[in-house]
Amino acid sequence: MSRTVIHGGLVVTASDEIHADVLIEGGRIAALAAHGTDAATGWSADRRIDATGMYVVPGGVDAHTHMEMPFGGTYAADTFETGTRAAAWGGTTTIVDFAIQSMGHSLREGLDTWHAKADGNCAVDYGFHMILSDVNESSLKEMNRLVAEGVTSFKLFMAYPGVFYSDDGRILRAMQRASGNGGLIMMHAENGIAIDVLVEQALAEGRTDPRHHGDVRKVALEAEATHRAIQLARVAGAPLYVVHVSADEAVAEIAAARHKGLPVFGETCPQYLFLSTDNLAEPGFEGAKYVCSTPLRPREHQEALWRGLRNNELQVVSTDHCPFCFSGQKEMGREDFSKIPNGMPGVENRMDLLHQAVVDGHISRRRWIEIACASPARMFGLYPKKGTIAPGADADVVVYDPGAEQTISARTHHMNVDYSAYEGKRVTGQVRTVLSRGVPVIEDGAYVGHAGHGTYLPRGTCQYL
Amino acid sequence: MSRTVIHGGLVVTASDEIHADVLIEGGRIAALAAHGTDAATGWSADRRIDATGMYVVPGGVDAHTHMEMPFGGTYAADTFETGTRAAAWGGTTTIVDFAIQSMGHSLREGLDTWHAKADGNCAVDYGFHMILSDVNESSLKEMNRLVAEGVTSFKLFMAYPGVFYSDDGRILRAMQRASGNGGLIMMHAENGIAIDVLVEQALAEGRTDPRHHGDVRKVALEAEATHRAIQLARVAGAPLYVVHVSADEAVAEIAAARHKGLPVFGETCPQYLFLSTDNLAEPGFEGAKYVCSTPLRPREHQEALWRGLRNNELQVVSTDHCPFCFSGQKEMGREDFSKIPNGMPGVENRMDLLHQAVVDGHISRRRWIEIACASPARMFGLYPKKGTIAPGADADVVVYDPGAEQTISARTHHMNVDYSAYEGKRVTGQVRTVLSRGVPVIEDGAYVGHAGHGTYLPRGTCQYL
Amino acid sequence: MSRTVIHGGLVVTASDEIHADVLIEGGRIAALAAHGTDAATGWSADRRIDATGMYVVPGGVDAHTHMEMPFGGTYAADTFETGTRAAAWGGTTTIVDFAIQSMGHSLREGLDTWHAKADGNCAVDYGFHMILSDVNESSLKEMNRLVAEGVTSFKLFMAYPGVFYSDDGRILRAMQRASGNGGLIMMHAENGIAIDVLVEQALAEGRTDPRHHGDVRKVALEAEATHRAIQLARVAGAPLYVVHVSADEAVAEIAAARHKGLPVFGETCPQYLFLSTDNLAEPGFEGAKYVCSTPLRPREHQEALWRGLRNNELQVVSTDHCPFCFSGQKEMGREDFSKIPNGMPGVENRMDLLHQAVVDGHISRRRWIEIACASPARMFGLYPKKGTIAPGADADVVVYDPGAEQTISARTHHMNVDYSAYEGKRVTGQVRTVLSRGVPVIEDGAYVGHAGHGTYLPRGTCQYL
Amino acid sequence: MSRTVIHGGLVVTASDEIHADVLIEGGRIAALAAHGTDAATGWSADRRIDATGMYVVPGGVDAHTHMEMPFGGTYAADTFETGTRAAAWGGTTTIVDFAIQSMGHSLREGLDTWHAKADGNCAVDYGFHMILSDVNESSLKEMNRLVAEGVTSFKLFMAYPGVFYSDDGRILRAMQRASGNGGLIMMHAENGIAIDVLVEQALAEGRTDPRHHGDVRKVALEAEATHRAIQLARVAGAPLYVVHVSADEAVAEIAAARHKGLPVFGETCPQYLFLSTDNLAEPGFEGAKYVCSTPLRPREHQEALWRGLRNNELQVVSTDHCPFCFSGQKEMGREDFSKIPNGMPGVENRMDLLHQAVVDGHISRRRWIEIACASPARMFGLYPKKGTIAPGADADVVVYDPGAEQTISARTHHMNVDYSAYEGKRVTGQVRTVLSRGVPVIEDGAYVGHAGHGTYLPRGTCQYL
Repeated sequence: MSRTVIHGGLVVTASDEIHADVLIEGGRIAALAAHGTDAATGWSADRRIDATGMYVVPGGVDAHTHMEMPFGGTYAADTFETGTRAAAWGGTTTIVDFAIQSMGHSLREGLDTWHAKADGNCAVDYGFHMILSDVNESSLKEMNRLVAEGVTSFKLFMAYPGVFYSDDGRILRAMQRASGNGGLIMMHAENGIAIDVLVEQALAEGRTDPRHHGDVRKVALEAEATHRAIQLARVAGAPLYVVHVSADEAVAEIAAARHKGLPVFGETCPQYLFLSTDNLAEPGFEGAKYVCSTPLRPREHQEALWRGLRNNELQVVSTDHCPFCFSGQKEMGREDFSKIPNGMPGVENRMDLLHQAVVDGHISRRRWIEIACASPARMFGLYPKKGTIAPGADADVVVYDPGAEQTISARTHHMNVDYSAYEGKRVTGQVRTVLSRGVPVIEDGAYVGHAGHGTYLPRGTCQYL
Repeated sequence: MSRTVIHGGLVVTASDEIHADVLIEGGRIAALAAHGTDAATGWSADRRIDATGMYVVPGGVDAHTHMEMPFGGTYAADTFETGTRAAAWGGTTTIVDFAIQSMGHSLREGLDTWHAKADGNCAVDYGFHMILSDVNESSLKEMNRLVAEGVTSFKLFMAYPGVFYSDDGRILRAMQRASGNGGLIMMHAENGIAIDVLVEQALAEGRTDPRHHGDVRKVALEAEATHRAIQLARVAGAPLYVVHVSADEAVAEIAAARHKGLPVFGETCPQYLFLSTDNLAEPGFEGAKYVCSTPLRPREHQEALWRGLRNNELQVVSTDHCPFCFSGQKEMGREDFSKIPNGMPGVENRMDLLHQAVVDGHISRRRWIEIACASPARMFGLYPKKGTIAPGADADVVVYDPGAEQTISARTHHMNVDYSAYEGKRVTGQVRTVLSRGVPVIEDGAYVGHAGHGTYLPRGTCQYL
Repeated sequence: MSRTVIHGGLVVTASDEIHADVLIEGGRIAALAAHGTDAATGWSADRRIDATGMYVVPGGVDAHTHMEMPFGGTYAADTFETGTRAAAWGGTTTIVDFAIQSMGHSLREGLDTWHAKADGNCAVDYGFHMILSDVNESSLKEMNRLVAEGVTSFKLFMAYPGVFYSDDGRILRAMQRASGNGGLIMMHAENGIAIDVLVEQALAEGRTDPRHHGDVRKVALEAEATHRAIQLARVAGAPLYVVHVSADEAVAEIAAARHKGLPVFGETCPQYLFLSTDNLAEPGFEGAKYVCSTPLRPREHQEALWRGLRNNELQVVSTDHCPFCFSGQKEMGREDFSKIPNGMPGVENRMDLLHQAVVDGHISRRRWIEIACASPARMFGLYPKKGTIAPGADADVVVYDPGAEQTISARTHHMNVDYSAYEGKRVTGQVRTVLSRGVPVIEDGAYVGHAGHGTYLPRGTCQYL
Repeated sequence: MSRTVIHGGLVVTASDEIHADVLIEGGRIAALAAHGTDAATGWSADRRIDATGMYVVPGGVDAHTHMEMPFGGTYAADTFETGTRAAAWGGTTTIVDFAIQSMGHSLREGLDTWHAKADGNCAVDYGFHMILSDVNESSLKEMNRLVAEGVTSFKLFMAYPGVFYSDDGRILRAMQRASGNGGLIMMHAENGIAIDVLVEQALAEGRTDPRHHGDVRKVALEAEATHRAIQLARVAGAPLYVVHVSADEAVAEIAAARHKGLPVFGETCPQYLFLSTDNLAEPGFEGAKYVCSTPLRPREHQEALWRGLRNNELQVVSTDHCPFCFSGQKEMGREDFSKIPNGMPGVENRMDLLHQAVVDGHISRRRWIEIACASPARMFGLYPKKGTIAPGADADVVVYDPGAEQTISARTHHMNVDYSAYEGKRVTGQVRTVLSRGVPVIEDGAYVGHAGHGTYLPRGTCQYL
């Protein structure tokens, strides 16, 4: 069994900052020992990594990615191969992607399809949530089986009528089922029925530019759907995880529910924390790069999101990574914003952007690790295998240089997409070394991993409750 | 340097549950290693503690005790010697007690007096908060010096006019000072001026029984003072820690402030979580045993407190340990509830009662450790020396038997007081072994420590911000 | 032109209590003069009504009735003839009933049908709201025409999928239209899609009794729909009137919206103020008498409704009069609560029950007249013709004996239904005389009106804004 | 008995808008009759006032004035003679001024002093509130006697320590007394103890300009005191009227209390609705003209006040008229803002400014009359004698030209003060004729009243409850 020692660094977890060396045996963390103790200095090792002046942090857990996702006649540009490699470059060693049930098909079929996409292709470990497109007696029964097998979370959409949309009755039934089997319902909370009316009206009036994407998907309609999802979950007696929360009023709905003691959770994404409708309104068709749903919001919403993250009203930052190239893909909506594929790249940037938030004073160093590693792992049944550095955990470890400066750019990123949403942004902090189950994936500024190293992760049920 | 290994247990911290052996070198945690790894099995040791089937948890941090406190012509019955010994019996290895500035005297004089009480007498480590009774230019200046020396938190009273009471102007000045020097203001939040009117009226009308203590100290007057303290802290730009929160409406005030992003924190105590006005109304003069301020509340307030603890609207559970014997002390108020010394024993029971809350499903195992160990250590600048089990931390460790059953009773407790507030209560879970900086204090059902082992802890500033 | 003088009474309006005589010339109030003034004593008159010791109040305006309404294969038991006669007996001189657009038909057709039902049959004046069952381009255009003609309010249903239900997109479109043309959207706010799931599950589990009607139509689902309707109205920039508010949480949603300055209004009904789920749970099949939607709620909701009425969070009390005989009609649901026709009788009882609320101290005398006469008249564009006693107003006047005692009973009421929801209830206060446009309808304990006296009232737009 | 007829106008009351002629017999309204009816045309009269195209409205009731008030070594510049004359010019026919209990003296002495000031000097009717400066057993007993005599409201101050300030215990005692005797507590809600600290600090730092008056009297400290007053009133079981509410957060506190059903009321003043901290920051010493307490707030608070007035979260608009000349009086604070006499002129401008609010769309015509006439009359036990136009009411009537344009200016106003806070402001609407108990006071642009016409008004208890 190979042994690796990472010495001299500051181990940062969701709750601790420890001046300790880390011993890895095989794919797991075997031990932590304070710098300079006999225990530490006595370790033999096959590999020694000097982390002096560095942070030693758990590999990131990105609980919301869409590799190769079909959308509006095209596919998200990152495959599991390119996407997980980019994740590794950015210090993320686990993704949870979304398998999709197609209308009229079983969950199993959808899951099989996604396994086929990922199997043998991933640079880091991965799991699956299941998107329920067709809630019926049969798919409800399948939910139980999937939970038992390790697909323990199920996404529903209050938006996208005719595609992923479920009406409130189907949502209620799925929540009732989750209430019984331990599954966690993830909700895209926007009133898509009302939004589609506004889209139609905007287009009819010639308001076709990307910025109208932000106009029609109103804050009130995100807040409404969030409130509705909470009430339905309350009726069902089920926990609820709201994905990509972008609006201050939606945070307020979640906070109010939590204050009442309801098991309601919220996720936001870096794009809502760092970008705004100003980007959607960039000249020409540039705004298309920033089209995603929920949409970017006016800048003043950001403070509510940061505050929500500090107060644990929001628990997780994921990316909703779903990249479409500007050329050829985003351009499909040049005359009609509703035809712009929804989604943005980001899986590679999350850990760095959130470290920048530490530098900027928005969150503490420990909270960085909590929202990016520990909480998503707990939320989705991967803890303590993933999300922490502790004896027994998988040796998914990032050596992070907190003082390095870098400039985010499509020219240098590794995601398979022709633009960066953060082009030119200077950030402080950079990944140095990434281990996945003890095996180096990124080392000395090079990718040293390989497709197929990443293995599928059956997951337990939500440990956050 | 002596070496101790605790093997076979489940290490529980605020964020992790780790099947790991713990190596202690001298007074510190040197290393953790997964059970059965080479790293673990290779450790030599002077002492081996078998923790199989046990939890290995950080020693408790009780941030609110009043040993030997003068009150109404008498003194709290536990000395630093008896009180810290009882603390150890209950798995608490750190207390932060309150030095008192007397009216017309300096902070320094008060602090010296309390050092004299504690020095050489404590079984476990201790620090001091400072009670400000006389806020003036001179004592404001002293605050800076005390923060620099490690007395970094200052308690003010909105209750007890003529004794500890500070008016809003003095409170504002002290908060402004804390805002500048990193000190943390702790607030006894009850409108004592209004309460004294109600006390006078109750006594004049012959309502002299202990239960009237609960009647006159109204929920609305705790909520009011909590709101006022928050607004004053907001004006001063200072953080605020509200002690012994007992009422649902007070929790709501704190929650609302936190939702707005204000650095406001709340502590509650086991008595508010497990006892109620039903106890104050016990027949005869029995209710006197439960007289403390803030007072016990109707049972229905408990759910708001538990919910607040789960939601992190409340961060800390301390005891406000301030025992007075029923005989001779509590009896001083037989004809007049306002003459009953305010305070209850509890330093020995806190860890067990909160473990019972785990058993009862109110909180998770990790949250138990967080509210009882990690958060108080962070709040009061003792982290990571105290409050966690991690390499580099002080080896304040409790081996806790989660399945043991015990009955709380004055006959068996070690506090120097003739009654227990929880007499006859059955709880599941019990301390087996307690180490303080690596030295056994409780072992095999016996106290093996000694007065004077406990050392004074200069503290850093609040790390919770 | 005939002249009537009502002398000696206390004129009570929404804002004033005046010791004045009232002069009626033709169908209108000509003058008010203080008792005993030359002005008053000088009036000649064809008819003098002695109101000494009596209140002289505006005829009631019941803005929510369903005469002859088709529901589930049967019809509400009161025709316009019997229903308006009963209204008159109870001191109500104006009703606003609901014309229904059938699916696939125009608003005009529905309106014509209802005109045919009412024309020549009414004892008192009447207007129409329009129920929109089929929102489409054509019916949206018709809305403009109807507003211009005096049908200025439009009811939509978030409940009853497959019957009256509109989805959020149709609701939004109708609200946008109302925003432009001055129409007022009235909303049945219950999440009918979710409720139908719970109904199906209840029936499948054999929970078929009337009380399950209350169980499945949950408070959370009324509050949810209320919140959603408010957010949609906010997006549309339209005012909103929520009908038959029954739950405390729904009142809270309306209150929160109003505090933010949104033009949101709420109506409740006597059944929610005086009855509860206790009635739904009456032995045998008795509960069916109390089946209506929104359903009766647990008794503790009543206080929130009274408080809402006092605070003007709720503005109107209507009856939602929609009677079905116990025998033959309610019995259709003996094995299946979902087949019980929804609705209760009440048009005759409203003024008396609300006067009882004055006697009970829930509301003031003026507020009685405001919520029962003036506010509904204002809300629905009938003011000052209806709803007040002032020169120029229609002489719809009730002489009310505030000290009379009566017992409500099906044996003595005049509604065409075989039971009373308030059977045996003693109330203080009773109608003595009722004039409709100056013409006696009730006099000396007898009905002296005639079918066809009542005329159709084209209405203006909402004057409450 | 003289008879006056006002014909052709639109009578506007708090609830009605009536095209009616008004008959006055002696000092009272005898009758209203619709234009052109026999009843109206048949009236003989000594005087006929043509109100064609005019509003006929109740005389204004200004429930908050301070004529000749001593403050900081000087006196408010308007005597009862000049002040009530100016009130009449502005359409206000009733004032309720504040008699002041001096420290160490009885309420009676204070009341006698104020009677002496007013007796024989007033142009219009007047009543008195009582300022309690010295709450003790004796003054509490006097409260009962004053209520019985018609001084039914009592003002307390949470500001101005050492002058009018009462601590929370005294406030609670006074509230308890009011709870028993029907009195209404009026509260100046600012935390004066905290403010005085900030004042001292500002002056010590050389921040002596008028605008610092606004800085130190912080929004948070008005909201705090408002919350505290509400909680104390809740403990006492007493209603509460908060004077001169200026801050959005204070409105929110009142709204929250009302939503809970507490009998809490709020008053604001024209200066908070039309002026802002921009005025306090006018160049040189100009800001001194706008120094009053509570202070003017940033402009964005105005919307919360208007919304509060529309929603009945605030019920009354009074002036807090307390004028000090710029020359000689305001100048006392040239080097020290805390020495600027607190107060502004306004009794003459209130009705016009609020009519401008009608023109601007902030409130409806009826709400204008409600907040300026009817509600203050009801709140302070003067209804229906004052505040409405109805048979039996005092004939305090204003003929108001809604289309006239005027410019507010010290050059043309009648208040005894050398500046106008609204200098140069154009408003639409102007008083034409004012009757006080049927007697002309303003007519054809001239003052035709006389000192001593105005009589003292013993008042009943609050009718708003």
